[in-house]
Amino acid sequence: VGGAELYQLSKAGKLCVPAMNVNDSVTKQKFDNLYCCRESILDGLKRTTDIMFGGKQVVVCGYGEVGKGCCTALKALGAIVCITEIDPICALQACMDGFRVVKLSEVIRQMDVVITCTGNKNVVTREQLDRMKNGCIVCNMGHSNTEIDVASLRSPELTWERVRSQVDHIIWPDGKRVVLLAEGRLLNLSCSTVPTFVLSITATTQALALIELFNAPEGRYKQDVYLLPKKMDEYVASLHLPNFDAHLTELSDEQAKYMGLNKNGPFKPNYYR
Amino acid sequence: VGGAELYQLSKAGKLCVPAMNVNDSVTKQKFDNLYCCRESILDGLKRTTDIMFGGKQVVVCGYGEVGKGCCTALKALGAIVCITEIDPICALQACMDGFRVVKLSEVIRQMDVVITCTGNKNVVTREQLDRMKNGCIVCNMGHSNTEIDVASLRSPELTWERVRSQVDHIIWPDGKRVVLLAEGRLLNLSCSTVPTFVLSITATTQALALIELFNAPEGRYKQDVYLLPKKMDEYVASLHLPNFDAHLTELSDEQAKYMGLNKNGPFKPNYYR
Amino acid sequence: VGGAELYQLSKAGKLCVPAMNVNDSVTKQKFDNLYCCRESILDGLKRTTDIMFGGKQVVVCGYGEVGKGCCTALKALGAIVCITEIDPICALQACMDGFRVVKLSEVIRQMDVVITCTGNKNVVTREQLDRMKNGCIVCNMGHSNTEIDVASLRSPELTWERVRSQVDHIIWPDGKRVVLLAEGRLLNLSCSTVPTFVLSITATTQALALIELFNAPEGRYKQDVYLLPKKMDEYVASLHLPNFDAHLTELSDEQAKYMGLNKNGPFKPNYYR
Amino acid sequence: VGGAELYQLSKAGKLCVPAMNVNDSVTKQKFDNLYCCRESILDGLKRTTDIMFGGKQVVVCGYGEVGKGCCTALKALGAIVCITEIDPICALQACMDGFRVVKLSEVIRQMDVVITCTGNKNVVTREQLDRMKNGCIVCNMGHSNTEIDVASLRSPELTWERVRSQVDHIIWPDGKRVVLLAEGRLLNLSCSTVPTFVLSITATTQALALIELFNAPEGRYKQDVYLLPKKMDEYVASLHLPNFDAHLTELSDEQAKYMGLNKNGPFKPNYYR
Repeated sequence: VGGAELYQLSKAGKLCVPAMNVNDSVTKQKFDNLYCCRESILDGLKRTTDIMFGGKQVVVCGYGEVGKGCCTALKALGAIVCITEIDPICALQACMDGFRVVKLSEVIRQMDVVITCTGNKNVVTREQLDRMKNGCIVCNMGHSNTEIDVASLRSPELTWERVRSQVDHIIWPDGKRVVLLAEGRLLNLSCSTVPTFVLSITATTQALALIELFNAPEGRYKQDVYLLPKKMDEYVASLHLPNFDAHLTELSDEQAKYMGLNKNGPFKPNYYR
Repeated sequence: VGGAELYQLSKAGKLCVPAMNVNDSVTKQKFDNLYCCRESILDGLKRTTDIMFGGKQVVVCGYGEVGKGCCTALKALGAIVCITEIDPICALQACMDGFRVVKLSEVIRQMDVVITCTGNKNVVTREQLDRMKNGCIVCNMGHSNTEIDVASLRSPELTWERVRSQVDHIIWPDGKRVVLLAEGRLLNLSCSTVPTFVLSITATTQALALIELFNAPEGRYKQDVYLLPKKMDEYVASLHLPNFDAHLTELSDEQAKYMGLNKNGPFKPNYYR
Repeated sequence: VGGAELYQLSKAGKLCVPAMNVNDSVTKQKFDNLYCCRESILDGLKRTTDIMFGGKQVVVCGYGEVGKGCCTALKALGAIVCITEIDPICALQACMDGFRVVKLSEVIRQMDVVITCTGNKNVVTREQLDRMKNGCIVCNMGHSNTEIDVASLRSPELTWERVRSQVDHIIWPDGKRVVLLAEGRLLNLSCSTVPTFVLSITATTQALALIELFNAPEGRYKQDVYLLPKKMDEYVASLHLPNFDAHLTELSDEQAKYMGLNKNGPFKPNYYR
Repeated sequence: VGGAELYQLSKAGKLCVPAMNVNDSVTKQKFDNLYCCRESILDGLKRTTDIMFGGKQVVVCGYGEVGKGCCTALKALGAIVCITEIDPICALQACMDGFRVVKLSEVIRQMDVVITCTGNKNVVTREQLDRMKNGCIVCNMGHSNTEIDVASLRSPELTWERVRSQVDHIIWPDGKRVVLLAEGRLLNLSCSTVPTFVLSITATTQALALIELFNAPEGRYKQDVYLLPKKMDEYVASLHLPNFDAHLTELSDEQAKYMGLNKNGPFKPNYYR
């Protein structure tokens, strides 16, 4: 079960043990989503298609961590990227990062690539698939296989042609082809690889969460969902810094006192990301 | 009083009214720090010095929102930037963003520009000022005027020469000059301007916080420090989107139900940044 | 006289001495245009207006070295930039760099900033000025003061209001204001400063050109226009490398032979940029 | 035969027909090298290794068009990139683009990835391979298979282990492994694909060059090497613009006269890149 489901269980009073929402610890969250997807969106598209990123018109649905990663990478390689959002805060961030915020229907006809990363369902509908231009690439980087309404494409008037592993051409009666990757499942898992460094971050976070739950004095955790204590999140990060030959600065006693911090952390309030 | 002081008052039981920590609402935080400083670091340096950013070696102390803004802008204009950090999570983020994480003493001799944004005190010490190279520019983008130990420079063996408003040359006996901006006070306030757009974000956030506190049913807020409710944070953002001709997407009933969200928000958990 | 005029004189047989087109030597060209304008477009806009770059819609007319510099900087700070071009090669480069190539009339209504860098005349016409939205900023980074048809704005139905040095509001009868910078003269010279590093590159190039013309054996140069010999262009660059603590690699004898190069340069054919 | 060999033949008086150096036409040059390698360096590394780009220390040998492409892409994805150069002009460009210019021997011990793109031989020597750290990835993006001294690695004290197609681990007696890609041949051809768009640019350029040579009036071309006429270079570009829905601006008669240009081009002097 994912983080959202844990909170639903908890709300419904059906959680019978304490749980850690490791998915929202800062380090794991950034690596699994922002940093990993920044690379895998490029990798996934390159392995499956003939795309050259420069000058391509791309719409990214959802400007959360995954969307931010995809947008950063594609923009850096010369794509012209716009985004769709439901959340005004994320939308405003997209503006400030240089992406136009549009409704999908406004731009769908001009797009070379459509990427979903909302975690929602039916973000790309059959009506929108009908309006895409010939050769448009459609893929999903979100949390499920529901974002693109693939079921709607399994209808008699459309022809499916598998051109290579994970790549289908959906052919309209007028000859238009839409390039569907991984049948709408996760591109990053289906058509790219996850670096072991990311796996190490994830595994370390999970292991520390279990140790914390196991070792915690009775009563610290009730039948509820908790974020990983900040200090452990920081510990996961510190274990991975030597890979980059990174040298942390230590607080002097005087500085720690001035900041009201313990010299060994945690260094930030729990809501800090 | 700033956010940190509010929490200290609260912890000490000395807070006699409910308080909103508007400083950590997402929208205000990003604009006041990340987006604003991304521009004002360039502006502040350009107005006061003869600097050309390309190829300059820069160390930024602190990779919080202000540091992230400074680093992004300077890197984009061709500077070679490294950072110092006490917090392993921020340090790891710096690595992933392409910045070497160093101790200040390791690099101080080579730097063309030293920028502080830690909120701490004595981040740049007299010993480090002594080791800087001729022409090194030193300035502060953090929360106070304590980050650079300016007091230590007011000593008889050093000569101060005011070369223009907000710019002092500190001259060592061997002729070496360090260029100190705004006497160590905030560069962004002293040597740049704050766009009215940022002021609007801040003022809107503060006004909504006051309205919320005033209108809240008795008992909702106690003598403690609260984050602005997510929905109001989103409202601030939505009020500023029309400036960018941004078009938000609306959830369908079906999608809202699938996500477990109200169609009008809030769209994210409170800790989401 | 500029480079173009020299070639016209030469073509007309009116050049009575040998001339060096120092303007097109690689080092000077890149610094005067690409690198310098990358910084001065930001500086010029910041000193004169209340602009925040993030999310601003900007059109840059001309994607030569100056246009490339402006576009790079503005994109990096979160502006959404499109360009206009007459030359298909430069236009294709703009595509690959992630900029939409448009005609000015297609986008003029939506733009927050209009920047000219074509070297041409009447690139922004009165008709286009009439269609700009309220608050649009118009400025010129090109080679002359002819790019914006400023003369057309000096007409009785429009009111000029000087709001500060170098900044005029042109007010239409319906109250719309266009913000004209430096009366259409060069923004980079009028509202920004040129770093001494750029002046050093320029002065060194000019001095070497004069020395070369003076020292050249009779007959090497006729009454024509010449590019600075590659080797001197390289020399200018090498004199400025120590500022960056840059360490050049030297060819081994074997490598020089393999490449067919002299170990001391020139390292590239003359047309290489 | 490549461009360099053509010039050598011509110099030696051994060229018996006119030849076009299509390789240095602007459009083909940029696409084959800058734009193509910007994407294929990422693709080639991702398909062959477990690399995550963020935070990786990379040295790129050679800052020509290929090197510029590699550096841009790697920097954008969070790698920390430095370069080596023999040419002071390219070195100065690297500085202004934010890359430290070093000698390979100064940094070789710290590097996670070494990439050659010089066109030279023995750029990476056995001595340098000996000093690399465990896990260092070595690959070649240049013009030949001579840049890495692979022959020196075929010696009895080293063990070669093929871990997958195009990937060899070279194992030192102390257990250190260097990851050699494509046995030092071109990574972009061996471990990535060339987009058909690039092939189209190249084929169009070559075809136009042949047509020009065939159709040219007698005497226009002698037994020498020529650059493609600017106008044809522009024509290649204009044929590929519709892919990006790019709209060129046309000169008015008045503007063409002011610029001294024909409205149909060529728009730039021949040496313009």
